[in-house]
Order: sequence, then structure tokens, then C-alpha cells
Amino acid sequence: MTIIDIITKKKNKEELTYEEIKYAVDGYLDGSIKDYQMSSLLMAITINGMTNKETFDLTEIMLNSGEKIDLEDIQPVVDKHSTGGVGDKTTLILAPLVASCGVNVAKMSGRGLGFTGGTIDKLESIPGFNTSIDIDKFKEQVKNINVAIVGQMGNLVPADKKIYALRDVTGTVESIPLIASSIMSKKLASGASTIVIDVKVGNGALMKTESDAKALANLLVKIGQQHNKKVVCFITDMDEPLGYAIGNSLEVLESINTLIGKGPKDLTNLVINLATYMVSLGKNIKLEEAYKEVTENLYNGKAYKKFQELVKNQNGKLNNIKISKKIISIKSQKEGYIKHINALSLGEIARILGAGRLNKEDKIDFEVGIVLNKKVGDKIKKGEELLKLYINEKEVEEEKILDCFTITKEKQNPTKLIKTIIN
Amino acid sequence: MTIIDIITKKKNKEELTYEEIKYAVDGYLDGSIKDYQMSSLLMAITINGMTNKETFDLTEIMLNSGEKIDLEDIQPVVDKHSTGGVGDKTTLILAPLVASCGVNVAKMSGRGLGFTGGTIDKLESIPGFNTSIDIDKFKEQVKNINVAIVGQMGNLVPADKKIYALRDVTGTVESIPLIASSIMSKKLASGASTIVIDVKVGNGALMKTESDAKALANLLVKIGQQHNKKVVCFITDMDEPLGYAIGNSLEVLESINTLIGKGPKDLTNLVINLATYMVSLGKNIKLEEAYKEVTENLYNGKAYKKFQELVKNQNGKLNNIKISKKIISIKSQKEGYIKHINALSLGEIARILGAGRLNKEDKIDFEVGIVLNKKVGDKIKKGEELLKLYINEKEVEEEKILDCFTITKEKQNPTKLIKTIIN
Repeated sequence: MTIIDIITKKKNKEELTYEEIKYAVDGYLDGSIKDYQMSSLLMAITINGMTNKETFDLTEIMLNSGEKIDLEDIQPVVDKHSTGGVGDKTTLILAPLVASCGVNVAKMSGRGLGFTGGTIDKLESIPGFNTSIDIDKFKEQVKNINVAIVGQMGNLVPADKKIYALRDVTGTVESIPLIASSIMSKKLASGASTIVIDVKVGNGALMKTESDAKALANLLVKIGQQHNKKVVCFITDMDEPLGYAIGNSLEVLESINTLIGKGPKDLTNLVINLATYMVSLGKNIKLEEAYKEVTENLYNGKAYKKFQELVKNQNGKLNNIKISKKIISIKSQKEGYIKHINALSLGEIARILGAGRLNKEDKIDFEVGIVLNKKVGDKIKKGEELLKLYINEKEVEEEKILDCFTITKEKQNPTKLIKTIIN
Repeated sequence: MTIIDIITKKKNKEELTYEEIKYAVDGYLDGSIKDYQMSSLLMAITINGMTNKETFDLTEIMLNSGEKIDLEDIQPVVDKHSTGGVGDKTTLILAPLVASCGVNVAKMSGRGLGFTGGTIDKLESIPGFNTSIDIDKFKEQVKNINVAIVGQMGNLVPADKKIYALRDVTGTVESIPLIASSIMSKKLASGASTIVIDVKVGNGALMKTESDAKALANLLVKIGQQHNKKVVCFITDMDEPLGYAIGNSLEVLESINTLIGKGPKDLTNLVINLATYMVSLGKNIKLEEAYKEVTENLYNGKAYKKFQELVKNQNGKLNNIKISKKIISIKSQKEGYIKHINALSLGEIARILGAGRLNKEDKIDFEVGIVLNKKVGDKIKKGEELLKLYINEKEVEEEKILDCFTITKEKQNPTKLIKTIIN
């Protein structure tokens, strides 16, 4: 067996065996297979696809390439993943909300590359918040207050880490089997028994079409079945940003508003739906029952109280959150109805302002970002505010921002956020 | 424009523009585009193909990446190329044969990687033969005796050199547009006005099927037309080795036999046909006329005399050619007719004996190789000799050699060597 044989086989659309995939992944990890060989194989996979069996095998091989978190003594634990989008702060709300219903949430999150920070960056915009605690304290905290959110622990799925970094610079990100095995190997290594995944679809997401999103969701559920894990996938819109806030501190503040029942409609609705599935599966109760408990806790203060507990346990100081005081109001030059808000472009604007990283080494400015004043379907007058920019050092041309909005004379319906649920 | 955009475009089967191909090739040459990015793009091209326009553009961009040989003052010059096969020593015979008819052959050849050496290695098995002479002496020699054969001169097509080395280790060799642009960029940089190309097809060749070989040949002719060069392609069999000898000195000896009209039928026939086209185009005379001149010179000693002149001009000593004295006769264990001789496996055996290189640094043993006693269609008795091995340090199991032959009870026709001529 040589790597050239394996590449050639996939180039010719043949199915790779478990041993061939293992040879490629292990060889890449130990350096005997080079970057340029792996990228050639990844492109062949991206174009010619992988069978379900190949995807299952790849997931398992990557999963076994490193350590695994053992959460046996605190099961059932529910986990949540999002394929990522602009303004996506759901984890900050979901984790304490679900925990407030008595379900264990032992969550490992990532930092962000791109538009804004990841969940860990957002949490670190709360001064003092400690995202690197060790595994024993992490489990202890979940036992005590049902919830903990930390950054990466241990050497989980090193194969995925190395392969993902390569995909990012070789045009091989957009492959459903590669995305599915990357997500699932990490989720399986993180130890939860139940996983709810928010598959974003639209212009601001990795999946551009609903049919691709469905294919990915189905594959995620099937990989879960192979490993006896309950996986539920939500397919949700990412054509416009989620909620109103984009940017780290700004998103924490919007999360707090949502946790006290005063959040944006779309975000609140999504969080309630995701939490309902997590609580239903985590407590093995009916969806209706779970829904009741979730909505009650969102409006009776319990969810926010749990958030306060979480922040306190991880040394964060909520009162010290800072947002920039340099605020620019961007006003509409047209009258009409908002037909579309370009999530991708707004995300890029937020990154330019300093809210996100372009390279791993970049430092995030927690204080900057965007707060929308209007969403799709809203009416707007000429001169009325479209959004506020919170800026520090970097600026963006007004025209670039106005270009993110499509305004028409015809009345528009608000975006339907949740498109399908697959389980 | 970024390399990721270009890779993604080709991944999505879109046509790349001239500027995009130039950006990729130039960036790869200057190091700003990495091996792993180029290999990803090459795999996307290998799977999704290239349009004729893309192939023309790539050829031109590679051609312009380095120096070009200017042969204006000795035109018309005819050139010949073979896509490579086991036992292919045609250049050694063709060059002096065509020159003996008064046509200029200014030939740059390569060293070999794989089965046996390339033309330059074969020539260097003639003790003293100098393959590195400078451009002025090279042209001077062509003016004087109509023929010179040298190794690579100048920094021709550096882009092809770098890309080819990468293709070799990333499973991206088998791509018709990449092969065509690689061959033609080098041939165009070498300065001849007429190029005859021997496209080998079969188990021992890069092109495994006749339809692939035809597609390549058509593309080569079209690229030639773009540059106002006459290109003629022969599609010839490489299921069994060409002639009887495989190995450097052994092939030189077989070439000499052929130059005095005593060569193997298949090799002699191929050489006469290729030479006929080269002479016809080089002298602008009819094929019938050229054929007459070529066959006469092969049998009246003029071709061999030209070979002696060539060798003498480049300091070679024909009397000093050495072949190994350690000879092993391999005998058939069956009676019947030779149905098939596996050229690829015999080539690998020759390489193992020392006749070829696996890595660039490997030293070739000129004295070793194989001389067949039988060809496809021949009758053989049990215990009769199949071939002779000329060995020095390395040996090969007898079974491995016997496995290269398929012998049946049914009578077999000899291989039809020349399948099609495309121009």
C-alpha cells in the first residue's frame, strides 16, 4: 500500500477500505505522508465524495487518533454544536437554560476564525472568565451546578486538527463527508451521550443550500447511530444574522437579555426549540413537557440565575463587561421593507472592525461590533437607523455597510428561522 | 484573486482564465503558492479536466516561465518525442537515420526515472560520449553533420519541472491536459519547427487505452497548431517491450544492429515510419519519396555511418561499450505460443537489476538488462530460452520473470505496433 495508490483509487471514484483510510490519516499525523499528498487526497474526496462506510471509518479513525473525555460518571450529558454563523451566540444562552432544567451540560467550545470569536472568545469578553480548567474541576462543576463551558481540553482528535488546518488553505473545506467526520469525531471524543446540532444554511454559512444542509444533517445522525449516540439536527437559516448583535461583548449582552426573556424573537425562538430537544432527550421526557419547563425557566429568572452561577464559578465579573463608547449610527437612504441582510458581508465588516480573527495569532477586540436596528420584514423610513457600529481603531466605509441591505417597496415576511428538524 | 478562489473554481468544474492560470503557475514558481495548494489544484484538474483553451494557456504560461532555445539560423529542424516505454531506443536510431537524409535533428533528451535510463543515459553508456555541450557548439555540430543529441540546456520550462516533480508524488500524473501541456511546453521551448511524437499505449505506458492515447494525440496536434508548429503523432503499442533489448548498453547494441538493417522487425518498422514522416516534413517532400530515402539509408550503411559521425563528434568510443558477462538464461516451463509479455513488469525487473533509477540520485548500471529471445506470436518449446538476464550485483527471482509471459496453446498474431497516425 502506498499513498499514491490510495490517492489514485479515490481519484478513480473507488471506495477506500478502512485500512487505506487509516494508512493515510496515521501517516499524515506521523509526517510520513506529506501535506501535498494529503491535500491531493482531500481534493479527490471533495470532488468524488465518500460512501457512508468511508465516512464512518474516517470518523472512527480520527476519533481514535487522540485522547477522549470520559464523562461516564456524570451521564447523561447533553452537548450542542453549531456549524457556525454570524451573530450565533446560542451556546451562551442554551447551556445555562438547559442546565436550569436539571440537565448536565459539559461543554467544550472553540475559538473562532473568521467573522467574530467563537463561544470561548465571547465568554472571555466577560472579564476574569476562566475557560481553561482541568478535567476533574470541569466534571466537579457539572456535578455541582449542571453546567461548565471550557476551551479545548486534552489532545482530542489531533488528526482532525491537522487535516482541518490543511483543508482551510487548499480549497477542500466544502465537502459534506469531511465536514461530517470532522464534527462528529470531535463531538464523540467530548463524551456526551446526546448531541443537538444546529446546521446553518444560507449565504453566511458553510452550507449554501438546504439540500446540502439536509445531506449533512442526515450523515451526522447516521454517524451518531453508529456510535449509539442520540443526534438531533436543526437546519436553520443563516441568510441574515441571528439576533441583532454581532461582536463579542455585544453578543454577551444580547445573550443576557435573552436569558431574562427580553431577547430578539428569532434568537429566543431558536434557543427555546434547541433547549426543548436537549431537555427532552436529557431527561427522557416528552417534548411538550420539556418545552413547558424551558419556557418557564426563560421567563421566571431561573435560566439567568444559572448563567450567573456559571459565570461566578468560572470567575467572570458580569458587571465589568465593556463595549466601545465610539458609536456610529448608520441610517437608511431608502424607505421600504428590509428584504435581505447579507450575513456574510456583515460578518466580514465585524471582523474588519476587530471582532474576529483572520489569522490564529490575531488579537480580538471584545468591545467592537454591530448592533442591528432592523431585521428582514421590518419597515424602515429614509433617515431611520439601520444599525449601530461600535468601533475602536478600525473603520469601515458607510457604503459597504449599506450594500449589506436590500430594501424594497413590497412588504416582506420575516425569515423562517427553523427549516427542518432531522433525527 | 486568491489561490483558494482558483482551486474552488476548478473544483466546481468552471473554466479558469489565462490570468488565473498564470497567477497559480507564477505563484508556485516563486514560492508564494505552496506545494499543498498546487497539488490540490492539480488533483481538481486531473479529475475535472481542462478545456482546450485552458490547456493552450497553461502550455504558453509554462513555455514562458523560462529560457527558449533559438534555432532560427539552422531551421528547418525536426524533433521527436516519445511518451516513454520499456525498451524504447528509437531516438538513438531515428536521429542519425533522419540526419543521413539531410534533415537537421537538434535533439535535447532527458534522463530517465523508472524502468531504464532515458536517451541521455543510454548514450552515456557509450564510454566518453559527451551529452553536455553548449548551445553554440550544439548548433555548430548540427550545421556540420545535421545531428546532435544533448541533455537539458538552459533553464527551459522551470514551471514544468517543478510541477512535474509534484505530480509524480501526488497521484496527478494521469491527466491528459497536464501531460499535453508538459510535453508541448518543453518541445516548443526546444526550438524545432516540426515535431513527431510517439504516443505509447498499453500496460507499459502512461496511456492505458487507445481512446486516451488518441485524445492526448489530438490535443498535442492542436497545441502545435496554436504555435504554428507541425506536429504528427504516432499511437504505438506498449503492451510488450519494443525490440528485444531492455537496458542501456544492450539497447545501444540493438540500435546499432537496427542502423545496419539487422534490427528487430517491430523496432525497424517503427523507426522507418517515424523517420519517413520526419524526412517528409523536414524536406517538404512526399511520404513515398521520404520512405524510399529512409529505407535506402538504413540498408546502404549511410544511417550507421551518420551514427558513427555523431558518436565521434561527441567523443564517444563505440568499441568500448560494455555489457555484463554474468548472463542467466531463463527457460520456458511451458510449450505454446507467446500471447502476452508484460512490459511494465519486465521494465521493473530491469530497474531492479540496476538499469534504471528509482530516485534521482540513484546511479545506473549500464551493463545490466534483459534481452528477449521471443516476442508475442512466437512459438516456444518447453526448456527453450525465453530471455537472457545480464546481471551484476542485483538478482531477481526466476518466478517473477516467468510471470511476465502468458503462453497459450492457441496460435497468436504478433502485436500490431503502429495503431494510428494523427496529424
